[in-house]
Amino acid sequence: MAMPFVQGEIRAQLVEQQKCLEQQTEMRVQLLQDLQDFFRKKAEIETEYSRNLEKLAERFMAKTRSTKDHQQYKKDQNLLSPVNCWYLLLNQVRRESKDHATLSDIYLNNVIMRFMQISEDSTRMFKKSKEIAFQLHEDLMKVLNELYTVMKTYHMYHAESISAESKLKEAEKQEEKQIGRSGDPVFHIRLEERHQRRSSVKKIEKMKEKRQAKYSENKLKSIKARNEYLLTLEATNASVFKYYIHDLSDLIDYCDLGYHASLNRALRTYLSAEYNLETSRHEGLDIIENAVDNLEPRSDKQRFMEMYPAAFCPPMKFEFQSHMGDE
Amino acid sequence: MAMPFVQGEIRAQLVEQQKCLEQQTEMRVQLLQDLQDFFRKKAEIETEYSRNLEKLAERFMAKTRSTKDHQQYKKDQNLLSPVNCWYLLLNQVRRESKDHATLSDIYLNNVIMRFMQISEDSTRMFKKSKEIAFQLHEDLMKVLNELYTVMKTYHMYHAESISAESKLKEAEKQEEKQIGRSGDPVFHIRLEERHQRRSSVKKIEKMKEKRQAKYSENKLKSIKARNEYLLTLEATNASVFKYYIHDLSDLIDYCDLGYHASLNRALRTYLSAEYNLETSRHEGLDIIENAVDNLEPRSDKQRFMEMYPAAFCPPMKFEFQSHMGDE
Repeated sequence: MAMPFVQGEIRAQLVEQQKCLEQQTEMRVQLLQDLQDFFRKKAEIETEYSRNLEKLAERFMAKTRSTKDHQQYKKDQNLLSPVNCWYLLLNQVRRESKDHATLSDIYLNNVIMRFMQISEDSTRMFKKSKEIAFQLHEDLMKVLNELYTVMKTYHMYHAESISAESKLKEAEKQEEKQIGRSGDPVFHIRLEERHQRRSSVKKIEKMKEKRQAKYSENKLKSIKARNEYLLTLEATNASVFKYYIHDLSDLIDYCDLGYHASLNRALRTYLSAEYNLETSRHEGLDIIENAVDNLEPRSDKQRFMEMYPAAFCPPMKFEFQSHMGDE
Repeated sequence: MAMPFVQGEIRAQLVEQQKCLEQQTEMRVQLLQDLQDFFRKKAEIETEYSRNLEKLAERFMAKTRSTKDHQQYKKDQNLLSPVNCWYLLLNQVRRESKDHATLSDIYLNNVIMRFMQISEDSTRMFKKSKEIAFQLHEDLMKVLNELYTVMKTYHMYHAESISAESKLKEAEKQEEKQIGRSGDPVFHIRLEERHQRRSSVKKIEKMKEKRQAKYSENKLKSIKARNEYLLTLEATNASVFKYYIHDLSDLIDYCDLGYHASLNRALRTYLSAEYNLETSRHEGLDIIENAVDNLEPRSDKQRFMEMYPAAFCPPMKFEFQSHMGDE
C-alpha cells in the first residue's frame, strides 16, 4: 500500500516546513537582537570618544583664552596665520566631538528602536502565518484521507465483483453437467428417475440466476467506486499542487511581509547619520586646509611690526644743527 | 642738545626690537609645544577609540563565527541579504578601528616630530639673528657717535673763530686811537715825547697782525669742521635709513626662515592622514549601502527553500493504483 506511506511523508513535510519558518523567525529575531546590542555598544563608544575630544578642545581653549592672541581673535579675525591654524584645529576637534555625540544619539533614539520594532513585527507575522498554515494543513490532510478512503472502497468493491464472478462461473459449470446427463436413451430410464432429474436442473438454474444478479450488482458498484477514485485522485493532485506551489509560497511571503523594507529603512538611517558626520568632518578639514594655504610670512611680518609700532617705526631724519649765527 | 637724546632713543628702540623678536620666538616655541601636546593627547584618544571598535567587532565576529551562516559565508558569498549587511557592518567597524589606529600612528611618528623640529629651528634661527643684530647695532651706534663728535668739533671751532674775530676787532680800535693823537701841532711837542709814541704804534700794529693771523686760522678750521659735519650727517641718515628699511626687515625674515613652509608641511601631513581616513570610511559605507540596496525578499526566499530541500520540494503526483487485473 503506497498511499498511507506518501500521506505520512507529506504530513512529516508539513511539520518540517513549520519548523523551518520558525527557525527562520528565530534567526531573524537573533540577528535583530545582535544589531541592537551592537549599536548600543557602539553608541557608548561614540559617546566616550566625543567626551574625550570635547575635553581635549576645552583644555587647550582654556589655555589660549587668556592670551593676547585670543583677545585679538575676539576683536578681529586678523590673527597671525599659524595661530589661526591652531584655533581652527581646536574648532575641528570640537566639531568632531559634536558630530560623534549626534551619531551616538541617532543610534540610541532611532536605529535601535527600528530594529526592536522589526523584531516584534517578525514574531507577530510568524504567529499569524502559523494559524493560516494550520488551517491549510488541515484541509490538505482531509483531502488526502478522502483519497485514501475512496481508493480503499474501489479496491473492496472490485474484489467483491471478482468473487461474485467466479461463483457465477461455477454455477454455469454445474448446469452444463446436468444438461449433459439428460442426453441418455429414454427406454433405459425409469419413470420416477426422470422426475428427480428435472427438479435438480431447476434448482441449478435458480442458483445461477441469483449469482448472475449478485455479480452484475457488484460489478456496477466497483465501476462507480473506480470513477469516484479517479475523480478524487485528480482533485487531490490539484490541491497538493496548489498547496506546494501557491499556498506555501504565500506563507513564506507572509512571514517576510515588510521585513526587508523595514530593515532597509533602519540601515539607511544609520548610513545617513554616518554620511552626515563625514560631510561635516570634511567641511572642517577644508577650512583648515584653506588656513594652511594662507600660512604667509609676509602678512604675518606686517602684523608683527604693527603690533609693536614703537619698536619698528624709523626715527626722524637728523637735521643740521647750526652753531649760533652760523647759517 | 637734541643729539644725545635722539641717539639714546634709537639705542632704546634697538633693544626693544630684540625684545620683540625674542617674544615672537617664545610665542612660536609655545605654540609648537601646544601643538605637540595636542596631537599627543589626540593620538591617545584615537588609539583608545580604535581599541574599543576592535573589541566591539571582535565580540560579535566571535559570536557569529560558529553559526551555520558563517560556514556558508566561508564557503560561498551567497548569504541571506540581511546577514550580508550584518557582516559588512562588522567589517566597517573593523575598518574604522584600523584607520583610527593609523591616524594615531601618523600623529605620533610624523606630525609631532615635525613640530619638534620646527621649534628647534626657530630657536636656532633667532639665536643667529641675535648675533647679526648685535653687529648691526654696534655699527649703527658707531655712526651715531661719530656724528655727535663731528658736530661738537664744528661747534667748538666755530666758537673759537668767533672769539678770534672779536679780539682782532679790538686791536684795530687801539690802532685808530694812536693815529688820531699824532695829528696835534708839531711845535708843541718835545723831541723825546715824539720818540715814545712811534714805538707804541709799532707795538699795536704787531699785535693786530698776530690776531689777524689767529682769526683766519680759526675761521678756516671752523669751515672745515662744518663741511665734515654736513658730510657725516648725510652718511648717518643713510645708515639709519638702511638699517630701519633693509637690515631690520632682513633680521625678521631671518627669524622666519622656513617657519611657515615647515608648518605648512606638518599640517598637510595631518590633513592628508585625516582625508585618507575619510576616504576609507566612505568606501566602507558605500559597500554597506550597496548591500542595503540588495536587501531582496525574493532571492532570500529562494535561498531559504534551497537550504531545506526536504521540506519544500513538492511530492510525487498521486498515480492511479489499480486493483489486481483492473486497468
